[in-house]
Amino acid sequence: MPEAEVTVVERGPYTSYSMCGIPYYIGGLIGDAEDLVVRTPEEFRAAGITVHMRTEAVAIDADARTVRVRDLGADERPQRDLPYDALLWAAGAHPDVPDLPGLRRHGHVVHTLDEAVHLRAHLESSAQVERVVVVGSGYVGLEIAEALVQRGMRATIIDRSPQVMKTIDADLARPLQDQLEARGIAVRLGESVLEVHDADGDCREVITDRGRHAADTIVLAMGHRPNVDVPAGAGCAVGPTGALVVDPQMRTTVDGIWAAGDCVESTDLVAGQRVNVQLGTHANKQGKVAGIVVAGGDAAFPGVVGTAVTKLCDWEVARTGLTIAEADQLGLDYAAVTFTSSAKAGYLPDAGTVHVRMLAERGTGRVLGAQLVGSGPIAKHIDVAAVWCQLGVAVQQAQLLDLSYAPPFGGVWDLLQVAARKLTKELGLHPQI
Amino acid sequence: MPEAEVTVVERGPYTSYSMCGIPYYIGGLIGDAEDLVVRTPEEFRAAGITVHMRTEAVAIDADARTVRVRDLGADERPQRDLPYDALLWAAGAHPDVPDLPGLRRHGHVVHTLDEAVHLRAHLESSAQVERVVVVGSGYVGLEIAEALVQRGMRATIIDRSPQVMKTIDADLARPLQDQLEARGIAVRLGESVLEVHDADGDCREVITDRGRHAADTIVLAMGHRPNVDVPAGAGCAVGPTGALVVDPQMRTTVDGIWAAGDCVESTDLVAGQRVNVQLGTHANKQGKVAGIVVAGGDAAFPGVVGTAVTKLCDWEVARTGLTIAEADQLGLDYAAVTFTSSAKAGYLPDAGTVHVRMLAERGTGRVLGAQLVGSGPIAKHIDVAAVWCQLGVAVQQAQLLDLSYAPPFGGVWDLLQVAARKLTKELGLHPQI
Repeated sequence: MPEAEVTVVERGPYTSYSMCGIPYYIGGLIGDAEDLVVRTPEEFRAAGITVHMRTEAVAIDADARTVRVRDLGADERPQRDLPYDALLWAAGAHPDVPDLPGLRRHGHVVHTLDEAVHLRAHLESSAQVERVVVVGSGYVGLEIAEALVQRGMRATIIDRSPQVMKTIDADLARPLQDQLEARGIAVRLGESVLEVHDADGDCREVITDRGRHAADTIVLAMGHRPNVDVPAGAGCAVGPTGALVVDPQMRTTVDGIWAAGDCVESTDLVAGQRVNVQLGTHANKQGKVAGIVVAGGDAAFPGVVGTAVTKLCDWEVARTGLTIAEADQLGLDYAAVTFTSSAKAGYLPDAGTVHVRMLAERGTGRVLGAQLVGSGPIAKHIDVAAVWCQLGVAVQQAQLLDLSYAPPFGGVWDLLQVAARKLTKELGLHPQI
Repeated sequence: MPEAEVTVVERGPYTSYSMCGIPYYIGGLIGDAEDLVVRTPEEFRAAGITVHMRTEAVAIDADARTVRVRDLGADERPQRDLPYDALLWAAGAHPDVPDLPGLRRHGHVVHTLDEAVHLRAHLESSAQVERVVVVGSGYVGLEIAEALVQRGMRATIIDRSPQVMKTIDADLARPLQDQLEARGIAVRLGESVLEVHDADGDCREVITDRGRHAADTIVLAMGHRPNVDVPAGAGCAVGPTGALVVDPQMRTTVDGIWAAGDCVESTDLVAGQRVNVQLGTHANKQGKVAGIVVAGGDAAFPGVVGTAVTKLCDWEVARTGLTIAEADQLGLDYAAVTFTSSAKAGYLPDAGTVHVRMLAERGTGRVLGAQLVGSGPIAKHIDVAAVWCQLGVAVQQAQLLDLSYAPPFGGVWDLLQVAARKLTKELGLHPQI
């Protein structure tokens, strides 16, 4: 449908950038914020797309098929109504910051690129910034803490959870935490922030239920809430996750309104539940599907299996499907195997250490999840387990698939196939298709 | 079946070692040949297995169920018959060396660990060894050439083929060749060895149809032929590949005789043909299946899809399924996409360069093959494509699977999913399950 008129409304000053690249920009590995931009407004315009920057969508009239937008760039912030035949709501999420004394005032969030530019300017301009408290130990919090240490600062992570990175099982998070601490990152778990003390307008100290932490700067990485208020106001259903309900064609429950990205629910194909997973990889795929469907084409987003990876202090962390904690919560009947192996053939120098876990359903042998935590290039291995989870492949078949082998890349039995083999035995199944 | 009496007959001085590790031993990355041994004869014996070392099986009487073995360790080489209920023939393959003047006399083969020990001792003991000619440019030839360069020697590869590494398409082998040449390895293609000249019993020169190459040492890596003569003599069928015909339970065509490893045929599940693929990963899986079945259990080896990887001069080479050359030879109706990308997010330093190719069947969109050649940790990505090939996954589904993403590991669209997306468009299909 090349004849369609496409108009994009963007609240911030940047279009189409890599949010996942922000920690590398903060750490200085990437020199210029513009390097994270995939397509500028000018590039979109050159492709025939109308782009309104620093413009916020504030209301939708689904009957009239108009969206009210506000120009944030002009002082008087004028509003106007843009008509649409189809509306795609792709407004993402916003940092979830509790209303604690001083926290919102002094806590830096780094959800958008302009916020990252602001934080880095602060870190670089102020000679006083040496001690930084990072609140939250998910992917973003840990990546930012590493970035700060790379800048020569002292980073303390505070999280009320008893473990870092709750997306993996606690016992596998422990060696990761050891690695972070070995790199000089202080980790305070099971500790809740209560308030922030300041002096002369500057942040000084973070007060928790278990102590006080001197802090020149605070970075908040406490998760994000889907931006759903505007479409919800137009009648779009919001699910129990707080994100918009959409079908596989990315249609909301209101005719003419589609949604994609961090603000929507997806189906977790292993758990059989609706989830809100805020990852760029899903946002990109959902955006592609929505674009095709809105333009009259045929496409469907199948759902997710919870695949995620990160690299922290030369360690790699990868997960897909269900953890033991999640499988237990769902009351599933499964077996799990856990073992330690190497990332290369064991006889090679620097063979690395990898902690491996895999879960499979009793009876069928269907792979339910896998986790890999360790040194060496192992993160992308998780994709094989992700495909197994998504396609319902069972361990007895998985272990005999023709996966690659050469000594620089692992043992002659692939890590995941060792796991599948152990699970086959554990479950009393037979290795075959 | 723990009560079974198991007897192993091994011609050489080592049991159960990593043949794929030999180039790293030759290069000096691994100090001691014993480091490549996974299980020693003593370890097998401790597990209750009788092991006859330096003992060769020379004939099978399938009716009497006996195997005649010869003791190579004793001067008179005495023979005797060992009775069996079930016989597993896992004798591998032997180097395929043409009968050219001087070639068999002076050419070192490195198929077994004792041959590797011999070559390394030769390289280390002789101050004269500086120029080495390697005949053959498959995985082994290239890995050995790199090992020689790492030892400070001058390596020249000679191959009659017009490209290195015939397991990938010629246009993708070209940048790999550039990389080898940049590391100081001379590559002479389309050139056939005719004879070897010596003087005073030492190798001096390799004569080809296109010139003469001074050589202090010659290493032969010209492929291997399955060791099938003994079971063939007992009536076991040999297929057109020259390897033993076996069923999914690894049974040969003669009752009571099983076979596994480099000496057997497998089914190529993409090409739908019988093939002889000599890789440790298949040998291990086939051995496992044969062991289970012989012991009265239930197992089946499904076949292969041609997955293979290697690392050469910091480049990684990975392939699965069919190349364009192979698909054309089979007369298949397919589309192929080829593009260049990076191994990390493009904005990161050292993002690397990866040449990507994928093939899919017209009509169904089924993935037929993929190749990855480039710098950075990309080889193991091929396993995802291998699973797609083996399970018959189509590009329209593949592109929307939940694969992992973080900037250190690639772009937000996984390399293979970019390929699948391009193929979906090329084939006029719709992205969905």
